[in-house]
Amino acid sequence: MIHRTPGGTRDVLPDEMRELRGLSSHLRATFEEAGYGEVRTPSVEYEDVLRRGDERSAGAGYRVFDERGEVLVLRSDMTIPIARMVASRFPEASTPLRLSYFAHAYRAVEPQSGRPREVLQAGIELIGEPAPEGEAEVVGLMLSGLERAGLARHRVAIGDGSLYRMLLDHLGVAPEARTALLERLTRRDLVGLEALLARLDLDAGEREALTVLPTLRGGREVIETARRALGKGLAPAVDALDRLTGCVELLAGGHAAARVIVDLGLARELGYYTGAVFELYDPAVGFAIGGGGRYDELLGRFGRGLPACGIVVDLQRVHVAQAEEERLA
Amino acid sequence: MIHRTPGGTRDVLPDEMRELRGLSSHLRATFEEAGYGEVRTPSVEYEDVLRRGDERSAGAGYRVFDERGEVLVLRSDMTIPIARMVASRFPEASTPLRLSYFAHAYRAVEPQSGRPREVLQAGIELIGEPAPEGEAEVVGLMLSGLERAGLARHRVAIGDGSLYRMLLDHLGVAPEARTALLERLTRRDLVGLEALLARLDLDAGEREALTVLPTLRGGREVIETARRALGKGLAPAVDALDRLTGCVELLAGGHAAARVIVDLGLARELGYYTGAVFELYDPAVGFAIGGGGRYDELLGRFGRGLPACGIVVDLQRVHVAQAEEERLA
Repeated sequence: MIHRTPGGTRDVLPDEMRELRGLSSHLRATFEEAGYGEVRTPSVEYEDVLRRGDERSAGAGYRVFDERGEVLVLRSDMTIPIARMVASRFPEASTPLRLSYFAHAYRAVEPQSGRPREVLQAGIELIGEPAPEGEAEVVGLMLSGLERAGLARHRVAIGDGSLYRMLLDHLGVAPEARTALLERLTRRDLVGLEALLARLDLDAGEREALTVLPTLRGGREVIETARRALGKGLAPAVDALDRLTGCVELLAGGHAAARVIVDLGLARELGYYTGAVFELYDPAVGFAIGGGGRYDELLGRFGRGLPACGIVVDLQRVHVAQAEEERLA
Repeated sequence: MIHRTPGGTRDVLPDEMRELRGLSSHLRATFEEAGYGEVRTPSVEYEDVLRRGDERSAGAGYRVFDERGEVLVLRSDMTIPIARMVASRFPEASTPLRLSYFAHAYRAVEPQSGRPREVLQAGIELIGEPAPEGEAEVVGLMLSGLERAGLARHRVAIGDGSLYRMLLDHLGVAPEARTALLERLTRRDLVGLEALLARLDLDAGEREALTVLPTLRGGREVIETARRALGKGLAPAVDALDRLTGCVELLAGGHAAARVIVDLGLARELGYYTGAVFELYDPAVGFAIGGGGRYDELLGRFGRGLPACGIVVDLQRVHVAQAEEERLA
């Protein structure tokens, strides 16, 4: 007589739990020593709060009806609830604010997709610190935490989520084509992207820039390649590349320099990122183990306009990566 | 601009979070050293799983509709999910099984009642160990854990949830009156209980027994008072009192002897308790900080019939009690 758990959820038995607790405590110690105070927000939020943070975020969550029939939503990430909390509970606290969390997020998933509905996240948010210092701090700290937790081969890709959007705006690409292009970019479907670009009314140089930019991945030199591809006409993009250079230079001075990859094709799904975006990998496994970015407009939507950035890992994926690293070692 | 969290939920800020983590780690260490392995179950379960455990448990939870319209329920305690897990994931493991958990449970609450919807629980379940050894182990361990976590004045009340029910059955009290009496008993409304008893067709001795039993609270001597009040005619009740004596004697040999109160009026709300029931208090605060009991029929409903008992604390209430103890010290 087997009683199932809902698809995309699972029981965690003692051996795995002990290892997950071990990972958490290494990360927690790393965050604490750097002055990040742990917070917790409720598992459920009012739907309009999540919608204010990101239209898609409210839709991606599970709806819960309370005893009065009010619609609550299980949080689908911690960044939006923390933005709400900072505006409500720290309206006048001096900045920067350094906060961390260890909590589950809940995602609606396609049936039979095998994707988890519950994700155990460990993350940090740095509020009130502008680019590029903020980015360098959170990325450097997460890389240290993962090292302390036992990973040896992890990498972080750093790009800029606003870069491609700016370029599309600058070139006057119509909204419909823009959405389709960004969707291909987010899925890293570069073949599909190129096919779409071929149908747009662009000159050869413009099409070349839009095609080449997402393929630029490597060391700091790819930022220079991007500068040449974009030309001089696009001041905001040049600013974004300058910030990226600044972030990479700050990290180059630290212990984690060799772990940094510049990736100008990186575009994260969530809609609130305004600048740098990050993705964490481990070569032992074929999936991202975490990510994050800068979200300078999110806190203002809750009434306290402050620049901010954050980074998060999926602890169960980190655990799989760690086990794979050990197996391959 | 204040964005509310749903009624009965709250944000936990860094100072409180640090203290809650401290409490958890003392309890976790206590449980681990005693061989209790931590587990985690999904936050959501299929409604029929919770209903199989306890009819009211499914109703008490929040309903969630997934992307296919299936009804899931946020767990309202961890004991039923762990019973499901043991039957499914440990169908042949040797017993006793010792499991612990640190997790949130979700409760539907009356609007404006001020009661929390999310309760952070720390608990243990001992599966396959009969009375009274099982009871003595889990109660003794939780008392030690709370001591290690910094409480000094906490107490545990131990009663038997089946005793009053047996007595009502034995005296042939009609189901409707039975439900009403048990409801008064659970609320500790002894005046209301007495008023209901006055209207029932009972002889003076029977009414006396039903009135006196719930008032018996104190040292081991109250068990002897109960024996006299019940007379000799009720063999199962005598067995229950014998088990209670056994449990109290086992605890009397340990470090926690002075913390034990026998309370024959104790009746816990949840429907799956079959024998001993516990409630944890701290004199610094006016509410129970935890509880538990024996549930010998629950695992059988999921396909692996084993005697079991468990005990749990509400970590936020333990935290309040600890702060109050410090303030009063």
